[in-house]
Amino acid sequence: MVKPRFDILGIGNAIVDVVAPVPDDFLAAHAMHKGAMALIDAGMAETLYAAMPPAQEVSGGSAGNTCAVAAALGAKVAYFGKVAEDQLGRVFRHDITAAGVHFPTAPLVDAAPTARCLILVTPDGQRTMNTFLGACVTFGPEDVDADLVADSAVTYLEGYLFDPPAAQAAFYAAAAAAHRAGRQVALSLSDAFCVERHRDAFRSLVEGHVDILFANETEITALYQTDFAEAVERARADVALAALTRSEAGSTIIRGAETHHVAAMPTALVDSTGAGDAYAAGFLAAYTAGLGLAKCGALGSLAAAEVISHYGARPQRALGEELAKIAAQG
Amino acid sequence: MVKPRFDILGIGNAIVDVVAPVPDDFLAAHAMHKGAMALIDAGMAETLYAAMPPAQEVSGGSAGNTCAVAAALGAKVAYFGKVAEDQLGRVFRHDITAAGVHFPTAPLVDAAPTARCLILVTPDGQRTMNTFLGACVTFGPEDVDADLVADSAVTYLEGYLFDPPAAQAAFYAAAAAAHRAGRQVALSLSDAFCVERHRDAFRSLVEGHVDILFANETEITALYQTDFAEAVERARADVALAALTRSEAGSTIIRGAETHHVAAMPTALVDSTGAGDAYAAGFLAAYTAGLGLAKCGALGSLAAAEVISHYGARPQRALGEELAKIAAQG
Repeated sequence: MVKPRFDILGIGNAIVDVVAPVPDDFLAAHAMHKGAMALIDAGMAETLYAAMPPAQEVSGGSAGNTCAVAAALGAKVAYFGKVAEDQLGRVFRHDITAAGVHFPTAPLVDAAPTARCLILVTPDGQRTMNTFLGACVTFGPEDVDADLVADSAVTYLEGYLFDPPAAQAAFYAAAAAAHRAGRQVALSLSDAFCVERHRDAFRSLVEGHVDILFANETEITALYQTDFAEAVERARADVALAALTRSEAGSTIIRGAETHHVAAMPTALVDSTGAGDAYAAGFLAAYTAGLGLAKCGALGSLAAAEVISHYGARPQRALGEELAKIAAQG
Repeated sequence: MVKPRFDILGIGNAIVDVVAPVPDDFLAAHAMHKGAMALIDAGMAETLYAAMPPAQEVSGGSAGNTCAVAAALGAKVAYFGKVAEDQLGRVFRHDITAAGVHFPTAPLVDAAPTARCLILVTPDGQRTMNTFLGACVTFGPEDVDADLVADSAVTYLEGYLFDPPAAQAAFYAAAAAAHRAGRQVALSLSDAFCVERHRDAFRSLVEGHVDILFANETEITALYQTDFAEAVERARADVALAALTRSEAGSTIIRGAETHHVAAMPTALVDSTGAGDAYAAGFLAAYTAGLGLAKCGALGSLAAAEVISHYGARPQRALGEELAKIAAQG
């Protein structure tokens, strides 16, 4: 097979994060589930933003974060996602492009604004997210360039894409285009509540269309409605490869009869936003570079440690040497 | 005299900062003076932004930062500055309002966009700034509510306000309104290059209209075109009170025959953006609370240390107890 132009093509909701530290009682006062992502409408976004402390704006979006981190690690990366032609859309486009990611999706004009995720970070470093999808709801199959999918080793889909209605069709179109070209499809389950909202669709996708599955413990147990040990075996049966993360307990990687346990990398937790996105980035950057599964997990752990050591889900230090360092280890 | 409604009223360019780490050679490649602020037009702002790495957006503006920090310290604070009715203008308004600052200035509609400052942070923690003034150029005397000036103990003006043309008139109008009401006027010199651009205007302002002067070493020596020791004496003759900062060497505070040397607070320097703004905030919060000059300087040092320990010029930790702690010290 011809070597593809891109190692990773990410498809996801193109979102600018609005990040602020809050005390725990802020979550209680606004009836939020700590650690979860909730969808909110434009009115609620205004109300909640007005109640929030001073914030910082950083580009986000689960697959967008994965793409930015993977590019920082040296992978060749492209991204599809829908921003509006507005200031926050230009911020998103600047940041992902400056990260070295090819971003061809045309912006939405004269309609909904660029999506925002209001992220509340509690003193324990946990993030609780409230997403106004804005322009993302118009992302659909017409935004999926099948030639570019065919020219990417792995097409990586975020589970959150099941929320905006037109994106599910885009999801299936991308998976079909990837498999027609002999490429692989990766999926992140994104969030346990997202899994609850779309469990049947997720199960059918995982069983029939996904080669590489990323999930954390609450997500994988939500998908299979069982405990972690049993969920590992269900995933082993459903997909060719799965990387299941357990925060500071590290990750479990399974492929057929193989099982690898990889340690997390200790770090001072400031903001857990993007930990899973960064893990997937490190994993896939190593995987598409041909490294073994334990090294894929190790690079995932390293990337996750970098992004949780500061506010925001994209890297703040150079990571260009890390892939080669891990590749060189015995 | 009746106790005023506000301790501090800040007037300045209302700016959203776009902050990114860069290597030193980025400055050389773009012919920038490290540590300085340069004015750029819309085209240059586009060009430079395109060349910048992924960034984070945080509300800024020198006096805006001072107001946010002073409010975090418990002072009653208001702010005048001009944003546009756009997404970045709403970000600025949200952040300064959420910081507890009264911000009555009407936004500019259907004209220039909200001002941006592209801030490049080198590995030594120094920041180099490039400002596109946007909507700030329309700020003028009509934006100065004289009643609110009269109801503020100290009106604090940033030197950068001398750059947009209509703001100089606003500057003098505010100073006159403050003095008519028996209030005080403070000025920050902002930047040595800004002093060079407007030296005669600054000197006449300092001699005739300013009660409290803030400057760092390069600014005060640029104003008087002499060495620091002589500049201290010139300032002593020109203004009732001056606080002159020297980075890690601390600050020198003079009032008539009094001279106080205050130490800087040691901290890990990440991004020096807003150090002087935060110092002025701490100083004025203590000053308007009636504390002695050494304590004013100490609270200035503490506030500066907080903002240089992270990216962005506004506080990321609660500072509400610090004024009382310093007040209680022997």
